[in-house]
Amino acid sequence: MTRTDEVCINTLRFLAVDAVEKAKSGHPGLPLGAAPMAYVLWDRFLRHNPENPSWPNRDRFVLSAGHGSALLYALLHMTGYDLSLEDLKQFRQWGSKTPGHPEYPLTPGVEATTGPLGQGFAMGVGMAMAERYLSTYFNRKDHPVIDHHTYALVSDGDLMEGVSHEAASLAGHLGLGKLIYLYDDNDISIEGSTDITFTEDVGARFEAYRWHVQHVSDVHDLEAIDQAIRKARSEPDRPSLIIIRSHIGYGSPKQDKASAHGEPLGPEAAKATKSGLGWPEEPTFYIPEEAGAHFRLAVERGKKSEADWRRLLAAYGKEHPDLAGLFHTVMEGRPPEGWDAAIPSFREADGPMATRSASGRVLNSLAGNLPNLIGGSADLAPSNKTQLEGYEDFGRQNGRNVRFGVREFATCAAVNGMALHGGVIPYGATFLVFSDYMRPAIRLAGLMKTHVILLFSHDSIALGEDGPTHQPVEQLMSLRMIPHLTVLRPADANETAGCWKIAIEAGGPVAMLLSRQKLPVLQADRYPIESGVRYGGYVLKDPASGKPDIILIATGSEVHLALDAAAALEARGIAARVVSLPSWEIFEQQSSDHKQSVLPDGIPRITLEAGVTVGWERYAGSRDAIIGLDRFGASAPGGVAYAELGFNVDSVVEKATKIARG
Amino acid sequence: MTRTDEVCINTLRFLAVDAVEKAKSGHPGLPLGAAPMAYVLWDRFLRHNPENPSWPNRDRFVLSAGHGSALLYALLHMTGYDLSLEDLKQFRQWGSKTPGHPEYPLTPGVEATTGPLGQGFAMGVGMAMAERYLSTYFNRKDHPVIDHHTYALVSDGDLMEGVSHEAASLAGHLGLGKLIYLYDDNDISIEGSTDITFTEDVGARFEAYRWHVQHVSDVHDLEAIDQAIRKARSEPDRPSLIIIRSHIGYGSPKQDKASAHGEPLGPEAAKATKSGLGWPEEPTFYIPEEAGAHFRLAVERGKKSEADWRRLLAAYGKEHPDLAGLFHTVMEGRPPEGWDAAIPSFREADGPMATRSASGRVLNSLAGNLPNLIGGSADLAPSNKTQLEGYEDFGRQNGRNVRFGVREFATCAAVNGMALHGGVIPYGATFLVFSDYMRPAIRLAGLMKTHVILLFSHDSIALGEDGPTHQPVEQLMSLRMIPHLTVLRPADANETAGCWKIAIEAGGPVAMLLSRQKLPVLQADRYPIESGVRYGGYVLKDPASGKPDIILIATGSEVHLALDAAAALEARGIAARVVSLPSWEIFEQQSSDHKQSVLPDGIPRITLEAGVTVGWERYAGSRDAIIGLDRFGASAPGGVAYAELGFNVDSVVEKATKIARG
Repeated sequence: MTRTDEVCINTLRFLAVDAVEKAKSGHPGLPLGAAPMAYVLWDRFLRHNPENPSWPNRDRFVLSAGHGSALLYALLHMTGYDLSLEDLKQFRQWGSKTPGHPEYPLTPGVEATTGPLGQGFAMGVGMAMAERYLSTYFNRKDHPVIDHHTYALVSDGDLMEGVSHEAASLAGHLGLGKLIYLYDDNDISIEGSTDITFTEDVGARFEAYRWHVQHVSDVHDLEAIDQAIRKARSEPDRPSLIIIRSHIGYGSPKQDKASAHGEPLGPEAAKATKSGLGWPEEPTFYIPEEAGAHFRLAVERGKKSEADWRRLLAAYGKEHPDLAGLFHTVMEGRPPEGWDAAIPSFREADGPMATRSASGRVLNSLAGNLPNLIGGSADLAPSNKTQLEGYEDFGRQNGRNVRFGVREFATCAAVNGMALHGGVIPYGATFLVFSDYMRPAIRLAGLMKTHVILLFSHDSIALGEDGPTHQPVEQLMSLRMIPHLTVLRPADANETAGCWKIAIEAGGPVAMLLSRQKLPVLQADRYPIESGVRYGGYVLKDPASGKPDIILIATGSEVHLALDAAAALEARGIAARVVSLPSWEIFEQQSSDHKQSVLPDGIPRITLEAGVTVGWERYAGSRDAIIGLDRFGASAPGGVAYAELGFNVDSVVEKATKIARG
Repeated sequence: MTRTDEVCINTLRFLAVDAVEKAKSGHPGLPLGAAPMAYVLWDRFLRHNPENPSWPNRDRFVLSAGHGSALLYALLHMTGYDLSLEDLKQFRQWGSKTPGHPEYPLTPGVEATTGPLGQGFAMGVGMAMAERYLSTYFNRKDHPVIDHHTYALVSDGDLMEGVSHEAASLAGHLGLGKLIYLYDDNDISIEGSTDITFTEDVGARFEAYRWHVQHVSDVHDLEAIDQAIRKARSEPDRPSLIIIRSHIGYGSPKQDKASAHGEPLGPEAAKATKSGLGWPEEPTFYIPEEAGAHFRLAVERGKKSEADWRRLLAAYGKEHPDLAGLFHTVMEGRPPEGWDAAIPSFREADGPMATRSASGRVLNSLAGNLPNLIGGSADLAPSNKTQLEGYEDFGRQNGRNVRFGVREFATCAAVNGMALHGGVIPYGATFLVFSDYMRPAIRLAGLMKTHVILLFSHDSIALGEDGPTHQPVEQLMSLRMIPHLTVLRPADANETAGCWKIAIEAGGPVAMLLSRQKLPVLQADRYPIESGVRYGGYVLKDPASGKPDIILIATGSEVHLALDAAAALEARGIAARVVSLPSWEIFEQQSSDHKQSVLPDGIPRITLEAGVTVGWERYAGSRDAIIGLDRFGASAPGGVAYAELGFNVDSVVEKATKIARG
């Protein structure tokens, strides 16, 4: 290690330590221990342009161990990102750009929101998947317009989380050779030594996943780290794990102790650490000139890297103008013009049709015009109807149909990573009930506002025989609770098409809830679906009189029950309006005029949804006016389960009559 | 394979096939492929008593691949459980004892609800943990009153799920030698060959977890399976995985195809399969006498096994009467008398105190009187305050503090398994936001009504600096949506004590939401906490006048905000009642008289909870009267984040004034 290396590494360490001390909160242990490996990676390998954090062909770096955020902020500041020393001093303060855990897109240079362990690991896999897809799609001989690595720094905690298993197994299967992870093997987690619970042979485990595994026995051996990264980069067909032995809280009185993990060293220990490592105790946030100058080389390197790439892109543009045009479009996150030209309109005679089947047809109609739409299912493609016909599996070569395997959590996390990478519109799918398995990643999608499309079929008890383990009940409403997630539950094939349009144009994550069972098609010339769906909620059908005595509000398959009930009520002399409410979130954003036109004050309402009732008071007004299901489902043929559990015309008519007549 | 073996195996196969055919729904592939291994296990090793499925010392068997339920039902019927041939014919029908996936406690002999993949695997680990704990606690020389194996049949899908990684790593660490898993390695999942996505070396992976791994190359080699199970049983210190190569849909035209997995063979293929395996096409549900007689030997064997054990238990009772008394008590699921004698009552001067700290104190006060209370945290014991002081770690020897590691999902699934085993009251813990990671297992807890206690600390934005990745927002309400789960959010130390009493005596799963931040202690002589908490919601404080103009309803830490706001309102001449609502579920069960006495009609209300507003209309009456948080949190010191996001006395007073004055 040269003198400059040492000064640079210690600069990172003590910027982090001082930030944590000033905030009186944070995690000094990881920065002290892992700074050398981060330094080698950022100083010698990471190809990025601090002045343009969104340069498409940059290497990606994910700090999966997000609690080490102070280290990342120090790296970003030192290498010239738009993150000032003042920002570092505002670590963990209200309104700062340096929150407790890295947040995308808040902080320039932060590639992913991390902290919930394991997910950074899996998002990196998604980034590498996007890189492979785009590179195989766009690159041409001598013109590798997408060609970069994805790196991550991962911790013991990341590797204990199940999602790391799922993502690692998938990455090994896919042979993602451009994925290189540094494992900060410090043998400490919050409760103490990893000996107390984490004694697996991590290297052997990753070899079993068909990863390329290397060991570096001392994090201070920069050349060994350098060599290992070089070897990893020269390995084309296997993702790499470099296991680097480090010491949490290095140099501090708490070195190798759990207490170094998640609390400030304290003023005395901070001073002792500084003096032990030959660092001035004052001033805090000290940056030696030597370190400043050395780190700042990243700026020029970055500019040059991007400039070289822009020249390459220009040459590519001349040889392949159409591809280059498309490349720019998708990299800017816009769908290519005419993307929706082939979306079908469904006719009554096409039905009855499950909305999952309609979704499959719409998805396939989009595939040709949206070549950057890529995704698949967590081993349920035939059920979720996510297969793109005529396209290969996503694998070691090109291909678009991702076989995520029975790995729901990694599916959503990888899909997040793909969206973070940019250039693709990724989708993932499973049964609605198993959205629970991916819920932590759905939450991160909301937090990051990634543009991901999640398809959840088998969206109610009406799926039938598989029974309560497979029948969602609480999932519908609990997805609606995740901020920034748009939940769509289309009522038929045409609403499904409308929902897909919303999903493609959305500015954040979308969950589409789809029926297993067949449903009638509501033909566009008889129902105002096309104009309606985009408002999230609309009048699907008014009574002959035009003056409703009651409004039936329903989502998804229950819209048909509402229509049938409205007809039965009409026969009883009760005029019912049917409102389809495919999306709460979108409806909520409408003007109060629109809302009033759909749900005018003073007319009693009933809501129908085959899920828990909690929350429906918002539209029903009163608890008594909610038709839902506050219990688990039951194994039986779908129609039987549905009817037995209260979803039948008689029940609805009875309740509606009572309410309409006061 | 003897002729009898073959007849017995085919009996299982075709009972399953016929059940699926009759239901026109289900999974014939696993029963056809895996019947031989299940047969060897059940016929030669499984120690159980079909006439007493709750015999405490029985071996446990979990069908983790729950979609193969028809195989399990066939085994239960044939070995003499209370499951008739008529029940088999009602497979997947409304109200039957043979639902699509095995359900506990619906069907005698079904040890766990399975189907959501990976969880059966992890629940088995929990069962083996309970066995170890009880055996080390109760067994005495020559008196092994608890001494049994836990078996499971696991599938490709189980092993792809992340929770299998977490649980396997934990089981390997703990050296659970009495855990023996048969892996039905059929190389097929729903989307097709596992080659398309699952190419890891499973055996090497499990060796990395420090499991004992064996391979059997042909499921029809019964002697090889026999030998492998024998070897596994003789391995005291490592859990065993026996990888058995099988053929999904064996003998059918769909053998080795994904189409054999999840749909009936169809009448023609079913006949072809039967004739190919030398089975009569008619009658369906055919049981040859030879098979009936052979399987029925299980009844006598089981009776004898249990009788032997009862003799042993009687001898144990003579030598160790106190222990034996306790053994009977805990095995019946009752807490021993005097269990709550040491629960502290907290005084104002003990505070301010975080409810997580109070929980830690109560938990420790229970430990001595409830020796079967066992659990721990997913690597957050110091934060969750779950450590039992003075007790060892749960490990290869005795010990009560379980170090679950950063494995939230496996924590909850294992805790479910421990509760299913019986004899222990298990608890698990993490931050509330990470309850998302365990949500699929919490759902199963609800479905099975397992008596598990989940402790979720850091229950709001007030946790502060860790920021939005760690701040729960939607978790509070979305936990309330899981049927049969009791959610408790105590307001102070004394409510926490009350909630612990509820948790210990509960008949199902309980989630306790605990504050990170310190809160004042509400002294019992000034607030009616002891009588109140048990109603789920109660009047904590009434205005001096006794006649409230407005009711402030709050949970957890927001109760203190409500108290402060009530005082400020009183100064403005507005009389406010404060209602503490630690549990919706319990309050909902109260008489309408009690509810009316707490929340009388006609008095306007405001609700306060630092979480999403959806759902609070139920108590607030109107959306405008809800104080909550429909966004993610923010990184800042806890008090700052709390106040900035609207949780301050001024905001509450302003809103309350507006509402009280109409």
